[in-house]
Amino acid sequence: MREVAVVGTSQLPVEMTSDRSLRAMGADVARGAMEAAGVDRVDAFYLGNMLSDELQGQKHLASLIADEAGLAGVEALEVRAATATGAACLRVAHLAVASGEVELALAVGVEKMSQGVATPALAKALDAEYEVPDGATLIRRNAEMMQLYLERYDVPEDGLSHFSVNAHRNARHNPNAVFRTKQITAQDVLASRVIYPPIRLFDCSPICDGAAAVLLAPAEHAHRYSEAPVRVLASAVATDRFRVVDRSEPLRLDAARLSAQRAYEQAGLGPQDIDFFEVHDAFSIMACLLLEAAGFAEAGAGWRLAQEGEIGIEGRIPIATLGGLKARGHPIGATALYQTGEIVQQLTGRAGAAQVDGARTALLQSVGGAATTLITHIIAV
Amino acid sequence: MREVAVVGTSQLPVEMTSDRSLRAMGADVARGAMEAAGVDRVDAFYLGNMLSDELQGQKHLASLIADEAGLAGVEALEVRAATATGAACLRVAHLAVASGEVELALAVGVEKMSQGVATPALAKALDAEYEVPDGATLIRRNAEMMQLYLERYDVPEDGLSHFSVNAHRNARHNPNAVFRTKQITAQDVLASRVIYPPIRLFDCSPICDGAAAVLLAPAEHAHRYSEAPVRVLASAVATDRFRVVDRSEPLRLDAARLSAQRAYEQAGLGPQDIDFFEVHDAFSIMACLLLEAAGFAEAGAGWRLAQEGEIGIEGRIPIATLGGLKARGHPIGATALYQTGEIVQQLTGRAGAAQVDGARTALLQSVGGAATTLITHIIAV
Repeated sequence: MREVAVVGTSQLPVEMTSDRSLRAMGADVARGAMEAAGVDRVDAFYLGNMLSDELQGQKHLASLIADEAGLAGVEALEVRAATATGAACLRVAHLAVASGEVELALAVGVEKMSQGVATPALAKALDAEYEVPDGATLIRRNAEMMQLYLERYDVPEDGLSHFSVNAHRNARHNPNAVFRTKQITAQDVLASRVIYPPIRLFDCSPICDGAAAVLLAPAEHAHRYSEAPVRVLASAVATDRFRVVDRSEPLRLDAARLSAQRAYEQAGLGPQDIDFFEVHDAFSIMACLLLEAAGFAEAGAGWRLAQEGEIGIEGRIPIATLGGLKARGHPIGATALYQTGEIVQQLTGRAGAAQVDGARTALLQSVGGAATTLITHIIAV
Repeated sequence: MREVAVVGTSQLPVEMTSDRSLRAMGADVARGAMEAAGVDRVDAFYLGNMLSDELQGQKHLASLIADEAGLAGVEALEVRAATATGAACLRVAHLAVASGEVELALAVGVEKMSQGVATPALAKALDAEYEVPDGATLIRRNAEMMQLYLERYDVPEDGLSHFSVNAHRNARHNPNAVFRTKQITAQDVLASRVIYPPIRLFDCSPICDGAAAVLLAPAEHAHRYSEAPVRVLASAVATDRFRVVDRSEPLRLDAARLSAQRAYEQAGLGPQDIDFFEVHDAFSIMACLLLEAAGFAEAGAGWRLAQEGEIGIEGRIPIATLGGLKARGHPIGATALYQTGEIVQQLTGRAGAAQVDGARTALLQSVGGAATTLITHIIAV
């Protein structure tokens, strides 16, 4: 298996409502990542999108957007894993280059959630037969985990609020973040309206529109395409029992543990080697549980990292360094590709005021559904 | 890149309406392919399904079915390319094993088209903004190609009917074919009702339910899992301009030509080396055009291969040897995996009365949308 490098990235500013079409957004970032690498063709084009079947009535999106980007002819496939779709797309692009068959693989993610009603389509990440008919949604599943967590570990009411505060603080330095101008306090989080108790509005990432792309090439050729390539040291996927109710310990996030463990093994690294963590903070409880599952805190202690400032840019394990899902935004099929672009910024010292000092190794995790599908990448200079 | 082998296959009988759930069908064939190879775990699970978003209200199908099959923990992702989805899934499983990272990759396809109304969901393989609002469907696009073909090459009215006759004839020998008992003549095709002129009912593959799985392993280890493994010599994807109207020559099927050419190059073979062709005969015109694009006939001469019996089991280039999409059935996400299983039957001399004598090398092609995404595999003993 040959080593893979990121040689180009591109992203659009995340917006609550974009006035551009899905295809225009996708083609824009596809061309952008290619221009960044100085190429006008790629060998494979993998597309990540979760909701276009319902929201745009479009099921054949990879070749549609490849054509819109002027790439007709190219290999084009769609890859999905519910809310981890962007990372699924990155995973397959990684396999393609690692195989030795594909030289340049473009992972393009795009989501336009403002068109139509996203919430019922998002609930399809749960079990349509056994969960959705009971009114289950991703918010409710996260609320149940949060309630259990708060009770079991006797966490103060504002114990998880600092995840959102940190995300908004970091988003100030990201021109592509949807909430780049909105600063919040822990009190603001507790004063925001209840969505499903105990989850409040400011515990949740927003429904929004965005597109991002990442171009991968063999590490051995990376300098042909980029002056500052970064290496993908690990790419790993794991799943859990599909329904939370079937898990012996719902707060343990076995899929997160397993995919992190596989990634650490591939890279020959451990949590102590990670300089920052682009975490899947779709909900504050998820950021907390993922920190624990990836080895940065004991069970029940993840919230303290936020409370004590250890997740900040200067902290022990910075997370959501350019706003995270909470404040950069979570346009699902594109999210992990935004995160990858931000990781490249950090690793190449271009994160400005959000720069993590001496950042050399990053962890990236994406969550599909109720922590059912977990995808972990480790990216390093 | 390491060579990849098929070491296990499994399939359910295709039915017009299955009384089993999507998850039960998928899990059944997943276990079946593993049992065929004598393994109780796999490293990766790639799922192919086109329509469950709408028809089953389910968007997170790979991990759902992996769990149902007792494989929770495994890497599980969904791969799609509209009506070529089954082949897209096989393609990614191939990349995973070829990369050297994954030892056992399971490609599982499942489709339950009888639940709800499939036709509008299928039309989403076309352009939702520029084609579907005008009433375009896949049937209409194929009818337009057929009309143009019949006129340009002055083909007699029954010129394409023999594709369907051949498919039904071969399906007799396939216990999993949906039309295994229904024999038809060219006159029957012309007497069947017009769906969209000049396409008649018997020119079309049926809307049906099915599931099939294929287990891939490194060729160098294949004998650990199978007494009669077959090798995947090529796996190639190509796309065309998305809309037919944007193509300079709509009957040339550039994506089919390009993906076949890439596959021939990978395998170091040409059309003369192919013993039979599991073609994407969703419509008789498509079988005809694909024969031309893959190099088995000149432009305008593909129909003669059918007319003159050259596509039969004893012919020059047998196609749809166990019924094809037309008569085995076309449960979309599973189709290419049914075809792969049938190719294995032929290559290992287990196709019974449908056996292609001395079959050693097979071509497999799948079509996404209006010949927009084309996926070609070459499989050989």
